[in-house]
Amino acid sequence: MPINIAVIGAGAWGIALALQMARTGANVYLWSRKELPDPQTNILSRLNCIEIPETITVSNAFPKQADIVFLTVPLQYMRSILPYIPDGHGPLIACCKGVETTSLKFPLEILEEIYPHRKHGALSGPNFAHEVAKGYPTASVIASKDQELAQDLANKLSTSTFRLYANNDPIGVEIGGAAKNVFAIASGIAMGAGLGENARASIITRGISELSKLSTGLGGEPMTLSGLAGVGDMILTCTGQGSRNYSLGYELGQGKTLEEILSQRTTIAEGVTTAPAILQRAKLHNVNTPIIEAVTHILNKKITIKTAQNILMSRPLGSE
Amino acid sequence: MPINIAVIGAGAWGIALALQMARTGANVYLWSRKELPDPQTNILSRLNCIEIPETITVSNAFPKQADIVFLTVPLQYMRSILPYIPDGHGPLIACCKGVETTSLKFPLEILEEIYPHRKHGALSGPNFAHEVAKGYPTASVIASKDQELAQDLANKLSTSTFRLYANNDPIGVEIGGAAKNVFAIASGIAMGAGLGENARASIITRGISELSKLSTGLGGEPMTLSGLAGVGDMILTCTGQGSRNYSLGYELGQGKTLEEILSQRTTIAEGVTTAPAILQRAKLHNVNTPIIEAVTHILNKKITIKTAQNILMSRPLGSE
Repeated sequence: MPINIAVIGAGAWGIALALQMARTGANVYLWSRKELPDPQTNILSRLNCIEIPETITVSNAFPKQADIVFLTVPLQYMRSILPYIPDGHGPLIACCKGVETTSLKFPLEILEEIYPHRKHGALSGPNFAHEVAKGYPTASVIASKDQELAQDLANKLSTSTFRLYANNDPIGVEIGGAAKNVFAIASGIAMGAGLGENARASIITRGISELSKLSTGLGGEPMTLSGLAGVGDMILTCTGQGSRNYSLGYELGQGKTLEEILSQRTTIAEGVTTAPAILQRAKLHNVNTPIIEAVTHILNKKITIKTAQNILMSRPLGSE
Repeated sequence: MPINIAVIGAGAWGIALALQMARTGANVYLWSRKELPDPQTNILSRLNCIEIPETITVSNAFPKQADIVFLTVPLQYMRSILPYIPDGHGPLIACCKGVETTSLKFPLEILEEIYPHRKHGALSGPNFAHEVAKGYPTASVIASKDQELAQDLANKLSTSTFRLYANNDPIGVEIGGAAKNVFAIASGIAMGAGLGENARASIITRGISELSKLSTGLGGEPMTLSGLAGVGDMILTCTGQGSRNYSLGYELGQGKTLEEILSQRTTIAEGVTTAPAILQRAKLHNVNTPIIEAVTHILNKKITIKTAQNILMSRPLGSE
């Protein structure tokens, strides 16, 4: 008897995840916010040529029943969706990444606040949606404080091309997912300003160290940041050419202002809102995050790129 | 009174390091193996346009006296150079990376064998030589079991563009430096075979996990691999376009044989000899290194790329 999986949100990641879950043999229910006259066709057009199998149902009505619910809506919008998910549904898996700007909470913290008695987890890793949609080999992390749930989902949902690692440190996992966009901006700035690849590799690596400290400060594990949801996602986002955050940083590095860059774009670079939110959250826990702080202050024009570089290169010499 | 620094080996990294050390205000002595009629001029020509300052002396005679000695000769050649370095010299810093194929030893292990009573350390990090030569911002790790020595060198040798972090786990540092070329081949194979960026990011990240276990098995620290000499150098080597090892892997991934690729090259891809050597070393310590093993067996034609992929994707599902 196939299980029923609901994917809430039909953006690129929601569609890719629905396609991947269909490969497990599950019945998949893909919820799309927009009232579409023919949702199945409309969704298809977003994916160029990839056929949606018959085991995926697309609808703008919430599913009546699901054994597992993946939440792929944008994080800032997730809270408003939660009341519509019936109590009888299985575990809620947050697939969105970031920090809610109003509460400074990570996705699972919002789920814990709203549904303290339901099971939940987070899915995160180096996963370009278009590659997962096509079935390219991919690894990811399923994290939950409930280790048994994480292992069970990893076993149930892994396929020959989608490999899930169980993890019991959702805090570390969600920090990695949120902060990668900030470090993608930092990496872009370094490359755009001509500082070179040594500088970029150091920014990413010192970023891992910064996030490991943040994880410890929030009660998570530092080592989680060395895994797929930390290092892995950072590598993908900070070196992949397709990243909106990286390209925004690159243009900043070349001397454009944030306003100039944003006026020429229709897409959102999440790192712009995430940077000050993570910084605020880190300060609440007395954790020092010098690179996130530098990006925030470059974005809000408190400092120039040159000043940021001087600050970062003249910090006291520590040990690794 | 400026200190005297000897750099043994005038390849790209030796020249870059000599230039960097001159920026600390030190007198630098750059030893070049070849008997050159006018070494100063010849060295210059390898660097296009970068002027060698007067504080650097280039010679093919060994320096009589040095407060710090950097060894930048290729690792397989290092042992033969060591007898020529006078006893009165200061600490020996291994800057070469890899595993000696005859002994399966890492650079510092060779220094410890030959000179058990001298001070030594290792320098490693995400450092493209041409960027260091030009004075681009760079971070690196200076590692020694003698923590005081490491911190002292970090303080003495850091400049506003070259930031040194002290570390007391040379084993972890040298594993990262050696294995990065193997993972660069693995990353190249994945990209050449069209497996995508998710796969590459996962290979690098699972590689860090593999190397962390190897470090523990050899008496080092797992966390070192999450630092500049691990993650940092992996990022640079596995994603930077200039890597010989990455491009060799890429061609393998596209279906060329190792012989075809090597016949068209004059440069060495160190990962080809490092892969079987590290694998042997890991087996001696009963450490499982599945990606290094896969690369070794692809190189020696025991398995195809497709088989390697199937093996790696079907291993038991662990936790992170």
